[in-house]
Amino acid sequence: MKLYSGYINELIDELAALPGIGNKSAQRLAFYIIGMSDERVNKLSGSIVQAKQHVHYCKVCQNLTDTEICPICSDPSRDPSTIMVVEHPQDLAAYEKTGKYKGLYHVLHGSISPMLGVGPDDLRIKELLQRLGPESRVKEVIIATNSDLEGETTAMYLSKLIKLLGVKTTRIASGVPVGGDLENIDEMTLLRALDGRTEI
Amino acid sequence: MKLYSGYINELIDELAALPGIGNKSAQRLAFYIIGMSDERVNKLSGSIVQAKQHVHYCKVCQNLTDTEICPICSDPSRDPSTIMVVEHPQDLAAYEKTGKYKGLYHVLHGSISPMLGVGPDDLRIKELLQRLGPESRVKEVIIATNSDLEGETTAMYLSKLIKLLGVKTTRIASGVPVGGDLENIDEMTLLRALDGRTEI
Repeated sequence: MKLYSGYINELIDELAALPGIGNKSAQRLAFYIIGMSDERVNKLSGSIVQAKQHVHYCKVCQNLTDTEICPICSDPSRDPSTIMVVEHPQDLAAYEKTGKYKGLYHVLHGSISPMLGVGPDDLRIKELLQRLGPESRVKEVIIATNSDLEGETTAMYLSKLIKLLGVKTTRIASGVPVGGDLENIDEMTLLRALDGRTEI
Repeated sequence: MKLYSGYINELIDELAALPGIGNKSAQRLAFYIIGMSDERVNKLSGSIVQAKQHVHYCKVCQNLTDTEICPICSDPSRDPSTIMVVEHPQDLAAYEKTGKYKGLYHVLHGSISPMLGVGPDDLRIKELLQRLGPESRVKEVIIATNSDLEGETTAMYLSKLIKLLGVKTTRIASGVPVGGDLENIDEMTLLRALDGRTEI
């Protein structure tokens, strides 16, 4: 005998297919959703459809936006001579929250990962190179991919390509996080911090 | 300047309002959903609306179902003389998976919690008592609420009411879980296991 109605099973399956949601969480979420008011259920499902319908990639930087060119790319007060390359829109958001970076961005939507079968062609690299063509005003590309194996691989790959175009390429520093306790920091990070030491 | 499009913010807010999903997870989920195919997005939002539309509480046991009376209540092979009272549909599902319990169920949809402002009237207790009226064939009510403070309070409250109706009331055993290592089990559970010891 089927334990749940087909409608519940379908909802559980759909929720469990989302990242970071296991079967038990999906079940709990499904029961919660069924117990919500009609109004809240409609708002939830509506917001999913609306976001998908209206949000797409910015033609220039590939960040998510509901306009053709995103607010950052179309902001005349941003410095067009610098592009920071990040893996995901979340990373861009993290840097924007600091309020200190005034250049533009480029979102790759991933990193090169032979393990996961993600190659350079699966990322928005072609779109980045197009921004660095002969008529470009870009003087520096800051590579801010994650400092894990995939992020480093991507940074190396990009830096080789971009240098060929004659544009200065930099990499964000890797080291001990501010407020970090040396005792609790992994060996690799400690060695990176040592290698990257600067005179004070 | 707004960091994300309003559509993204709305989706993040709706997702973050679900239980167990924090702001960061909601952001990650929202970006993931926007990156899904149109077909998958429609299936997800459709399954939410469909489940809410078709699934309701069984008239008898209050479990979730898409028929008026749920498959368990309408199954003639189940023993109608026993009702197991559980807090949530998930708990019923857990007992059904054992395949050993052949009686009926009653789902309270919560437990009495003065802290959270949940009183007896907020639970499906009235519906349980209706099933135990003079013409009822029920001989035993097994109270299988959780063994936390709220579950125990609810069990005590129910047992007093049900005994007044002259129906035998039992409580599932509390003790050391099967495969449990005594060393890692909390004091309260150890004492419960001692109190509940049976002759072998």
